[in-house]
Amino acid sequence: MRMLINVAESVVADALRGMAVAHPELTVDVENRVVVRRDAPVDGKVGLVSGGGSGHEPLHGGFVGPGMLSAACPGEVFTSPVPDQMVRAAAAVDSGAGVLFIVKNYTGDVLNFDMAAELAEDEGIRIAKVLVNDDVAVTDSLYTAGRRGTGATLFVEKIAGAAAEEGQPLERVEALARQVNENSRSFGVALSACSTPAKGSPTFDLPAGELELGVGIHGEPGRERRAMMTSREIADFSVNAILDDMNPRNPVLLLVNGMGATPLLELYGFNAEVQRVLTERGVAVARTLVGNYVTSLDMAGASVTLCQVDEELLRLYDAPVRTPGLRWGV
Amino acid sequence: MRMLINVAESVVADALRGMAVAHPELTVDVENRVVVRRDAPVDGKVGLVSGGGSGHEPLHGGFVGPGMLSAACPGEVFTSPVPDQMVRAAAAVDSGAGVLFIVKNYTGDVLNFDMAAELAEDEGIRIAKVLVNDDVAVTDSLYTAGRRGTGATLFVEKIAGAAAEEGQPLERVEALARQVNENSRSFGVALSACSTPAKGSPTFDLPAGELELGVGIHGEPGRERRAMMTSREIADFSVNAILDDMNPRNPVLLLVNGMGATPLLELYGFNAEVQRVLTERGVAVARTLVGNYVTSLDMAGASVTLCQVDEELLRLYDAPVRTPGLRWGV
Repeated sequence: MRMLINVAESVVADALRGMAVAHPELTVDVENRVVVRRDAPVDGKVGLVSGGGSGHEPLHGGFVGPGMLSAACPGEVFTSPVPDQMVRAAAAVDSGAGVLFIVKNYTGDVLNFDMAAELAEDEGIRIAKVLVNDDVAVTDSLYTAGRRGTGATLFVEKIAGAAAEEGQPLERVEALARQVNENSRSFGVALSACSTPAKGSPTFDLPAGELELGVGIHGEPGRERRAMMTSREIADFSVNAILDDMNPRNPVLLLVNGMGATPLLELYGFNAEVQRVLTERGVAVARTLVGNYVTSLDMAGASVTLCQVDEELLRLYDAPVRTPGLRWGV
Repeated sequence: MRMLINVAESVVADALRGMAVAHPELTVDVENRVVVRRDAPVDGKVGLVSGGGSGHEPLHGGFVGPGMLSAACPGEVFTSPVPDQMVRAAAAVDSGAGVLFIVKNYTGDVLNFDMAAELAEDEGIRIAKVLVNDDVAVTDSLYTAGRRGTGATLFVEKIAGAAAEEGQPLERVEALARQVNENSRSFGVALSACSTPAKGSPTFDLPAGELELGVGIHGEPGRERRAMMTSREIADFSVNAILDDMNPRNPVLLLVNGMGATPLLELYGFNAEVQRVLTERGVAVARTLVGNYVTSLDMAGASVTLCQVDEELLRLYDAPVRTPGLRWGV
């Protein structure tokens, strides 16, 4: 086991203790597992709460801060958080303007956020929900009915977060989040499996020299397994899989996302190939983000997310953000 | 080979093509392998040039921009860039105020930057140099006479970069860079070896269940190899190795740096342990940075860097910076 941990049981709590000391601008409740921006609730502002299994950092805790999430609820590794965390987060960030739950489409997350919404509404908090389901690789995968939620989560949280920061009302923030999800598509590739602390060994078997096309962010099976391909071939396959499913007439935001163990050197090279395909297919790229944003522990590989934007979505994307994982303009 | 590449020979050029499209705010000369901030030369401003072997991204190309480096010269993977790149970079950024070369202490880099300094001075560019040698693990390692330069490079580039941005003269920028290096110490640990594209397999043999204490950023041998330790034990060993060599009376900047393949979840947990030891040893932490900043391709592991700061160094560290790899305040 090549892990920098104490024991598997304390990995999430240890990480939260480390976040707390690294980020005094956040309130990290280690015991109850909720990460909240320190100035919450902000008067008149819609709260944004997301969460999911740990192991995808910086998602979601690293996206808490002005211009993005109000709070995040980390579950155990690759395991949904529980409703109590979500209700606690909603109560911490609600100013009376309501709270939007941003939920990646995994069965456990959906059920727990649904339950939390009911409980929070019982406490008098107005709740809206948006489901992120951008992964075109497969439907009805392990853990998921329908499409999985992956890289688009970053764009949903960023753009809805900017709208909330401006003081836009819950209905509008929710509609924007829904629009961003509908405008987004992703496709991921694994060059190696990841190892969870609890298991201590790879979660699935991917022999060296093979890759999984369309992998999920927990190592769920994709479309097919092939012998190793070049960066160029992987870019062709991934972008074409996305463009088979969307036909952007407007420019797109592009996320070239690392799964965790793939060096930034390789991600930039992959970005060159992805943008070559987009140019060939006539898709204009408005903004590019290259790095590890929606990860799968120590999995090697990458994913591509496109989000079609109009002027208003682009303006909100460009708006200032100050979180541990994404920061500009402030 | 689990690499997202085309062929080993084009890895650096491919990455530079990908940087060019992702970062329109930089001028990336793919052919000559120089990354320059687009507005260079800036009137009256000292230029800062660094560089080194590729494979440590975001260092150095990802630290080019306002408030940090003026230009970077990437060599082949784990191989020094050549003097021609450095002279070209110096010429591109010199406004007449002179240029500071920031050189990590590896024999090849030192020789090449020395030669480049002579050539640039022949062209009428005033050059100063600062050597970064913060790694307390070993002296006279593979590639190095004396101590290796590692994580402190980030602090040198950030603080000297802020001073240059303010218009401070070359002698002062050089003195600050030297002071930051002298105030800094690092120690790194590998939980796995890394694989270079050219070799396609691990550069050294580190069996699962063992770790290398004091490893270099190219996988050079450290102090000793041991059976796997906990995050708590590794933090004790690393911080104590540093504090055996420095005795900070002022607060420190803390960098908890990932080597590449260690998940952010684990790095935050490690940060909690590092800060526990620092508290026990009476060292105050002024600022904390947790993430992958000075990497070793896909090596698993982490390093700790401390930099003792007075009010002026802290002010310069906090000053705005806008680069692909480090960004705040703008």
